[in-house]
Amino acid sequence: MRVGVFDSGLGGLTVLKALIGAFPQNSFVYLGDTARTPYGSKSPEVVARYSVECARFLLTKGIDFLVVACNTASSLAMAQIQAEVPCPVVGTIEPSIDEWVRMGSPEPLLILGTRATVQSQAYQRGIISRSPESRQLAVACPLFVPLVEEGILEGPIVDHAMALYLDAYRREHPTAVMLGCTHYPLLRTPIARFFGPQTRIIDSPGAICDRLKQESGFHCPPVITPCTREYYVTDDPTRFQTLAERFLGEPNVVVSRAELASLPSASESINQFKSNAT
Amino acid sequence: MRVGVFDSGLGGLTVLKALIGAFPQNSFVYLGDTARTPYGSKSPEVVARYSVECARFLLTKGIDFLVVACNTASSLAMAQIQAEVPCPVVGTIEPSIDEWVRMGSPEPLLILGTRATVQSQAYQRGIISRSPESRQLAVACPLFVPLVEEGILEGPIVDHAMALYLDAYRREHPTAVMLGCTHYPLLRTPIARFFGPQTRIIDSPGAICDRLKQESGFHCPPVITPCTREYYVTDDPTRFQTLAERFLGEPNVVVSRAELASLPSASESINQFKSNAT
Repeated sequence: MRVGVFDSGLGGLTVLKALIGAFPQNSFVYLGDTARTPYGSKSPEVVARYSVECARFLLTKGIDFLVVACNTASSLAMAQIQAEVPCPVVGTIEPSIDEWVRMGSPEPLLILGTRATVQSQAYQRGIISRSPESRQLAVACPLFVPLVEEGILEGPIVDHAMALYLDAYRREHPTAVMLGCTHYPLLRTPIARFFGPQTRIIDSPGAICDRLKQESGFHCPPVITPCTREYYVTDDPTRFQTLAERFLGEPNVVVSRAELASLPSASESINQFKSNAT
Repeated sequence: MRVGVFDSGLGGLTVLKALIGAFPQNSFVYLGDTARTPYGSKSPEVVARYSVECARFLLTKGIDFLVVACNTASSLAMAQIQAEVPCPVVGTIEPSIDEWVRMGSPEPLLILGTRATVQSQAYQRGIISRSPESRQLAVACPLFVPLVEEGILEGPIVDHAMALYLDAYRREHPTAVMLGCTHYPLLRTPIARFFGPQTRIIDSPGAICDRLKQESGFHCPPVITPCTREYYVTDDPTRFQTLAERFLGEPNVVVSRAELASLPSASESINQFKSNAT
């Protein structure tokens, strides 16, 4: 099994790390769209365009299974991705909702995500379809992704950002908090402390691994040919390599540049431009 | 005079607002590359590609003069932009250094910018070429742009972010601080308070206006034909319109979508992709 995994940048490595731990016999191809990160502040249309491009790139790498390790893309672009990709596709939304249902649908449920994810209502609609009467709240935490990307995972800025976004929701005493962004597991400890031990945390990496244990291809025994791990980014590989090695706890991560043709080169001619009033 | 102004997103509006105030007789065309913002965390190569694309788009709008209202683009891509653009081009670096020299080159000078701007050494080299012995320090403040883009312009998160990046530099008692990012003027008040009244602040919008007062085209008398203001963005115009109206203090700002051909459309075929190991 050759599994493609993509995210807007670094955050999807939380999913990849969990997948490698759970399914070490599989090969993985990771793509981070670092030339256009972040997705969470961009429009549904642009997120869908970028996501389809990422999926197509991974298809050229011969994948048998695609994991959309970006909650913004999972929220806004799953239909478009599935229409493009002949192999099975799993995103972040359904697995997290499955896990919440397995917990007994604790409520009130608080969903944290990017602005694009929360506005898409993808989590909210998914939960209503499973548990129409359940009490749920969703809040966008736009600073959390820049904090994680900057490696600021604890301390007063994190505490004040949590207070800014979450104080009003803590008063609702959520019994479960869903981390609706693959960056947020890196803030799991301060978020869990903020809500206290009575609040259960659901995150995408754990939920996706639980979901994939039901897929036949993920049960195959170890094979003789060694599994491979490939890493691609759309911007400079060097900085990503350093962060990925630190993040995955592995030396010598080899990162290559994914040259998406839609990223402009400096030599493109001027007549490629048009503008449309909206 | 028809003046093009571009930035990675919203920040360049600080420059545009100053330009409209100083040169109301001119027409302005603004482009914000909101589909790919921010630039400050991306590589020199990618910033140069995007910047050249923005400049080319504005050329199709018939501009006579180009203002690069993005310090990251000014730091990393001025040579590439000037090679592409037949009209005069002004960036953010030289005008700020000119202003510092007019102040009598106060030192130590502290330069604040994005990671890309600081790593480019563009400010540092410019200052050394004018004043080789002067004492200067430069520090990247990567959270400042997300804070401004989120409208968080004061309060404990801003104070703690300033402390995180700037505490060590305050101890150097800088006599001048250069705001090397067009977003940072929106944090001017807390930054000025942080350093105290003995520290002078230099920002790009004021410096660029002073620089343009020396250009002949910017002295022309008011003309009969009404001046125009056009706004383009590469992502959804709606959110930008709301922010631009609030920011410029003007109602009915009309924002159009700039369709750069290099932004992928969902219908593009799969054979556009290739990947190169690096």
